[in-house]
Amino acid sequence: MPLIRSWVQSANAPDHPFPLNNLPCGVFSSSADEPRCGVAIGDFVLDVAALEEAGLLALPDGPLLDVPFWNDVMEAGPDVWSALRSRLTALLAEGAADRAAVEPCLVPLADVTLHMPFLVSEYTDFYAGRHHAFNVGTMFRGAENALPPNWLHIPIGYNGRASSVVVSGTEVRRPWGQLKGPNDDAPRFAPSARFDIELEMGAVVGTPSDGPVTVAEADAMIFGYVLLNDWSARDIQAWEYQPLGPFQAKATATTISPWIVMRAALEPFRTPTPPREVPLLPHLQEPGPMLYDIALEVSLTPEGGTETVISRTNYAEMYYSAAQQLAQHSTCGCPMNTGDLLGSGTISGPTKESRGSLLELSWGGKEPFAIAGGTRSFVEDNDTLTLRGRCKGDGYTIGFGDCTGRVIPALADPYKRT
Amino acid sequence: MPLIRSWVQSANAPDHPFPLNNLPCGVFSSSADEPRCGVAIGDFVLDVAALEEAGLLALPDGPLLDVPFWNDVMEAGPDVWSALRSRLTALLAEGAADRAAVEPCLVPLADVTLHMPFLVSEYTDFYAGRHHAFNVGTMFRGAENALPPNWLHIPIGYNGRASSVVVSGTEVRRPWGQLKGPNDDAPRFAPSARFDIELEMGAVVGTPSDGPVTVAEADAMIFGYVLLNDWSARDIQAWEYQPLGPFQAKATATTISPWIVMRAALEPFRTPTPPREVPLLPHLQEPGPMLYDIALEVSLTPEGGTETVISRTNYAEMYYSAAQQLAQHSTCGCPMNTGDLLGSGTISGPTKESRGSLLELSWGGKEPFAIAGGTRSFVEDNDTLTLRGRCKGDGYTIGFGDCTGRVIPALADPYKRT
Repeated sequence: MPLIRSWVQSANAPDHPFPLNNLPCGVFSSSADEPRCGVAIGDFVLDVAALEEAGLLALPDGPLLDVPFWNDVMEAGPDVWSALRSRLTALLAEGAADRAAVEPCLVPLADVTLHMPFLVSEYTDFYAGRHHAFNVGTMFRGAENALPPNWLHIPIGYNGRASSVVVSGTEVRRPWGQLKGPNDDAPRFAPSARFDIELEMGAVVGTPSDGPVTVAEADAMIFGYVLLNDWSARDIQAWEYQPLGPFQAKATATTISPWIVMRAALEPFRTPTPPREVPLLPHLQEPGPMLYDIALEVSLTPEGGTETVISRTNYAEMYYSAAQQLAQHSTCGCPMNTGDLLGSGTISGPTKESRGSLLELSWGGKEPFAIAGGTRSFVEDNDTLTLRGRCKGDGYTIGFGDCTGRVIPALADPYKRT
Repeated sequence: MPLIRSWVQSANAPDHPFPLNNLPCGVFSSSADEPRCGVAIGDFVLDVAALEEAGLLALPDGPLLDVPFWNDVMEAGPDVWSALRSRLTALLAEGAADRAAVEPCLVPLADVTLHMPFLVSEYTDFYAGRHHAFNVGTMFRGAENALPPNWLHIPIGYNGRASSVVVSGTEVRRPWGQLKGPNDDAPRFAPSARFDIELEMGAVVGTPSDGPVTVAEADAMIFGYVLLNDWSARDIQAWEYQPLGPFQAKATATTISPWIVMRAALEPFRTPTPPREVPLLPHLQEPGPMLYDIALEVSLTPEGGTETVISRTNYAEMYYSAAQQLAQHSTCGCPMNTGDLLGSGTISGPTKESRGSLLELSWGGKEPFAIAGGTRSFVEDNDTLTLRGRCKGDGYTIGFGDCTGRVIPALADPYKRT
């Protein structure tokens, strides 16, 4: 599919992240206004809540946009998602009859604050990147035992903490935690000294389920995708995670991009998962390509310093798709709900330059890597970490907006209220 | 504190679970009515929503009871919780002036259906019973390596799945899952053959927090306690849980008792955690007794058969209190919310008869135990499992209501909708 031209001229630039082909969903506020639903188009946010109120965007079973989150639309299902996209495309396409009525609903992106685009119901994080699992496994158990025995048979994951999911731009406070270094005699309570990021994609569940769903059904349930940074305190994780998995190490914050790119916008970029190393059981087999060709990068900017891109990889590196993960998540009958967020797991490529965490980039801190004006092993105070993703289409680009967060210093005393 | 006598005569019997000292919070419906908030008193539910509507129960910042869940009261904090208890005590005590106005708001317990008493925000399950951890660790790793190195230093836990929490009485469908027995060459997808229960208490978070909280602050945040059965598919768990912890094995269902017993009702039964085997770091030390002396039992009833009590233990067996668990949960800055549910971990005592799971009672299935008319290793189809808890006060008893669930057979084909 080629670029769909819009009367919003900035949306037609081939490198702009928000062409009419994208129409990502966010929540914005400007000046003293309350947060409301918007869709990005070129250099603007289209105030879709205002459009609906004005009767220009009538959705089945609406109103659905009179709340400051997209959950009502997400729950309404694929027919409503299509109706929304068709109608917005008609309103914004070059030569649209309603241009004069729509134009007052455009707000410059430069003037808005972006908020959480949806209410996170529950958050699950997977461990489904082959290279990441191999790298981390090698560091901890040696190359021969790198992959756990179940890894090639099921997308393994753990439940995370929905309350800690924040939108891009939110500062992240370096956490305290109980930790014990390999050379320590006893655990101690201290700020994390090995604070890290994980480059991931997040799948956002739209329609709910109650009972096991097939991979095809799971794919149809997914409303869209966000960039996701799963902040991780490696020293806390190392001490706490056996035998029940990561807990406080992962609960300080998980940052998502401000825009949910709907699945429909990603259709042209579908790509299959890599060849299976061992066959999957039928309940996890994919009926078609369920990953997406999304070029990803991570950059690090020290306070007052220059930005360095520290990793470049692609979502297509995952061994399991979000649809497979969602299907696995439902096997035991676990009810899945609108607003459930599924983190893909860290997306590392096969090369050193394509690793999706500082743990891997610095090989556990043993090989600090270069950034403009210095080196890094883990995240330092006041570093800003930014994830970016884009799909290159025929004359257009699909973007998610930056997924960014600055790490601020740990509290001097975590129990003293400021 | 002695029994507080009520004009509801059944509430004055020394063995009745719902005296005026208790006042547990539930949600009920009768005939075609919508579910509404109620408080158990003797053989009745007091329709507190109706009392509030009638102006007989004015709570600060009310109305708080005009919704079919207790979350609004829970969020309102300890002053409102006390105001509620004081006012209900005044209305229900022997000689109360308002008896005539209150009496029409009593509905016989025998005539009502009980629903989920609160909306579960997020659910976390701990592993904080010393005997359980030792038993399970011994089965899997031998007695010398039974306890993980972190176990005596932090209450370890994992995030569970809030969507799977159900109220007592809800049937539990035996799950399918991917599993691999010790003698299997490859994993297979099959119904769980080792379906189990875990006897636990659940702490219900009332007031929210944002940032680390002390153990004393955590204790004050807890609204009350429920009985909790953490249904567990041991064969799925064994295959999936390394290295990220339990996932689908624990997401079929978690059953809670229909009544939340408020912390105030449990005050007379406070008891300290057992002596520390190694000193805790200051952030986890308790300023006072934070466990409760709650006698617990598990019974099993086969279809059409006789009930057998298969375990008797006490909440005081836990190594860590819910307040310590909640404090640990917040260490990294994780926001805790109204409606968060914290499972204690399986409560096993030191003897064989006081083990809180079938896994332990049958020692991994190797030593089937006797029930009336047969034996059991794990739960069989159409078995009903019931947890009960009670505190014995001075002339009165505090109960939670039965926490019960019947296991129904697995679906013939989990992907065929019925």
